[in-house]
Amino acid sequence: MSSRGSGTSGSPAAADLLRRHNTALVLRALRDEGPASRAEIATRTGLAKATVGTIASRLLGSEVLSHHERRQDRLPPPRGRPGRPVALTGAHVVGLGLEVNVDYLAAVALDLSGRTRLFEVRPVRAGDAHQVLDSLRALAVECHARLVEHGHHVLGVTVAVPGLVDRGFGRVTSAPNLGWTDVDLADEVSAALGAGVVVSIDNDANCAALAEVERGAARGLRDVLYLTGTVGVGGGLVVDGSVARGGRGYAGEVGHMAVDGSTAACACGRRGCWEAQIGLRATLTAVGMEHPEDDEDDRGVDPVTVATMIAAQATTDVAVRTGLAQVGASLATGISVLANALNPQMIVLGGYFVPLGPWLLPTVEAALAADVFAPDAGGCTVALSPLGLQAAAIGAAVEVVAEVFAGRLDLPA
Amino acid sequence: MSSRGSGTSGSPAAADLLRRHNTALVLRALRDEGPASRAEIATRTGLAKATVGTIASRLLGSEVLSHHERRQDRLPPPRGRPGRPVALTGAHVVGLGLEVNVDYLAAVALDLSGRTRLFEVRPVRAGDAHQVLDSLRALAVECHARLVEHGHHVLGVTVAVPGLVDRGFGRVTSAPNLGWTDVDLADEVSAALGAGVVVSIDNDANCAALAEVERGAARGLRDVLYLTGTVGVGGGLVVDGSVARGGRGYAGEVGHMAVDGSTAACACGRRGCWEAQIGLRATLTAVGMEHPEDDEDDRGVDPVTVATMIAAQATTDVAVRTGLAQVGASLATGISVLANALNPQMIVLGGYFVPLGPWLLPTVEAALAADVFAPDAGGCTVALSPLGLQAAAIGAAVEVVAEVFAGRLDLPA
Repeated sequence: MSSRGSGTSGSPAAADLLRRHNTALVLRALRDEGPASRAEIATRTGLAKATVGTIASRLLGSEVLSHHERRQDRLPPPRGRPGRPVALTGAHVVGLGLEVNVDYLAAVALDLSGRTRLFEVRPVRAGDAHQVLDSLRALAVECHARLVEHGHHVLGVTVAVPGLVDRGFGRVTSAPNLGWTDVDLADEVSAALGAGVVVSIDNDANCAALAEVERGAARGLRDVLYLTGTVGVGGGLVVDGSVARGGRGYAGEVGHMAVDGSTAACACGRRGCWEAQIGLRATLTAVGMEHPEDDEDDRGVDPVTVATMIAAQATTDVAVRTGLAQVGASLATGISVLANALNPQMIVLGGYFVPLGPWLLPTVEAALAADVFAPDAGGCTVALSPLGLQAAAIGAAVEVVAEVFAGRLDLPA
Repeated sequence: MSSRGSGTSGSPAAADLLRRHNTALVLRALRDEGPASRAEIATRTGLAKATVGTIASRLLGSEVLSHHERRQDRLPPPRGRPGRPVALTGAHVVGLGLEVNVDYLAAVALDLSGRTRLFEVRPVRAGDAHQVLDSLRALAVECHARLVEHGHHVLGVTVAVPGLVDRGFGRVTSAPNLGWTDVDLADEVSAALGAGVVVSIDNDANCAALAEVERGAARGLRDVLYLTGTVGVGGGLVVDGSVARGGRGYAGEVGHMAVDGSTAACACGRRGCWEAQIGLRATLTAVGMEHPEDDEDDRGVDPVTVATMIAAQATTDVAVRTGLAQVGASLATGISVLANALNPQMIVLGGYFVPLGPWLLPTVEAALAADVFAPDAGGCTVALSPLGLQAAAIGAAVEVVAEVFAGRLDLPA
């Protein structure tokens, strides 16, 4: 081992690691505290001025940073030689997030400064596993081409999937609502995009939870539970600032918790699952409505649209309100269970729960106050997602960009 | 800001931080990979040899490290100048963990190398909040004095409490089984011990979960759920290697989840809590037994002893076995809920669940296989704690020692 001289810190791999790490420090300092001179960045990060200078030059060269004019009228210049401040722009460096779901596909590209550079939602026809995959690949290729055409560098792609995923292998283990079992999704999308684009996959609720923390209802919070309402019901957990995935990446399968002794049949084949009481099908049954017919051009009706119709009906129909009260009670039971177990600061309801929110929230809030052991429900509040159906795609894009700020992904030279 | 010169990295506080950080790197390298020469430590940690030399000299001086004789017959000496290896001993530097519970107090001191330097369990009489606190203070003072007498330096004390705690203020918010509300426990114990001893508090299940991961059934795992069975039922969550505490530190209050539509009254005043179905009182009711009388010298009977009696009775009494099957079914329901939500690698059952394990485990394992959405129950297994009633005290001591390895607590000079 002594033949390795001064140790791993001198190896090229370690030098790369250190460069990415220090670059990430500089990027975070600019993102979190705003534009600064090289001297100020050195103060913020604890890095040597010379190191900051090298990194800043490289990032200015690749247009990730730009020179920033100080607003003389607002801030006094720092004492000593002022130094020309730089700002994080990174407008042409983007992460691409895709979401595949039963009724729609979504795509969001975010640049390094967090601005949306592309956004698209495209309805798809449920039921045909191959067709959905084809549509997803086509969307990925189109979005990538459009971004490149506009001069963007695509750092990577993450696909959010409503099901069990094996992130290490990029494989969808099981997404029953899509009819997918053991689909090598990362490889499929990667092959469509061609070499050089890193493709990852993640569970949709994990992505949406991240999106809520980064730019939604739970911005800046560290302990958050996100509940999806798409076709199925899933959960994304953020624990102490990070997405909690569990031993095999299957954490958050709250739709299949048996919470109140119900024996209702679930699409998964079990009985008593929470999803069988609060899922979209269960909600339609509870309010005595049929699922609206798909329209003629072969597109599905998305869950949020369905829920919006239910909410509108509830304003005039007592039976619908009674049905929603029953769904609200089941929702409240499961949420209280999770609040006792996890003590989140906030529970964010997304998807079709959003239009139903006004009818569901009072019951949920009353249950949290009554049924959570910790005083004041442990401080837990409930919010409706402001991000719409694109929450998961936003979170998927955030995941890509976050790799740069974590020093795990390289910027273009 | 430029008046701060070369930035925070040059300040005395930053230098202290850096020294603790680098010291922790050296300690972890020796703990995790065994004895090594200074050159090998530099290779393992990426630190400069001179830095390692300074740290090693200081730690040898304070007897945290000692010189280690290489076993020439087993390992070839490294090429070049061999260098004299050092080993982590730290036998006289200890963390003291205390547990207060309804029927007993426990104390465990662990040294830096992880060896147990003190262990004591002392029964106490439930019901008198002041007397329990007096006994705890007396135990803390006695243990501390004994450790100092034997030449140990006590790094700090952590007290594990069966209830809601505010760690930041060192306050027990609510421990209903102890009759404690808003007890400033850290201050109380600190005042008894005198100046210079840092006292922290934590929830008992959090501590026990940590103990299982560090030296119990779940050694080396990163996603673990620990279930206490003392008088109440509580949970400790380890998520991605760290204890998950939630927004206000109240995560793991699984005893008060309402999981299967039961309406049984709980000691907390609610109905349907899991504790009201699987707690010790509920278990005694289910098997048709009375709580055994306390013995004459005014000491309580601890839950494990009670459960051991139930387990013995079950071998010959069908009604007891039927009652345990009912408790097992309720236990299984809640465990499946938690496995769906958290996807732990292992669920460890502690306290009175251990003697009852043979009667409960088959039901729990069958439920995990059937009721968890992820294939193969997401890889979750169930184990009985090997640590006995001292699990929480061990974990409390581990917490103190871990502060040194995390670079947050200073070693004696």
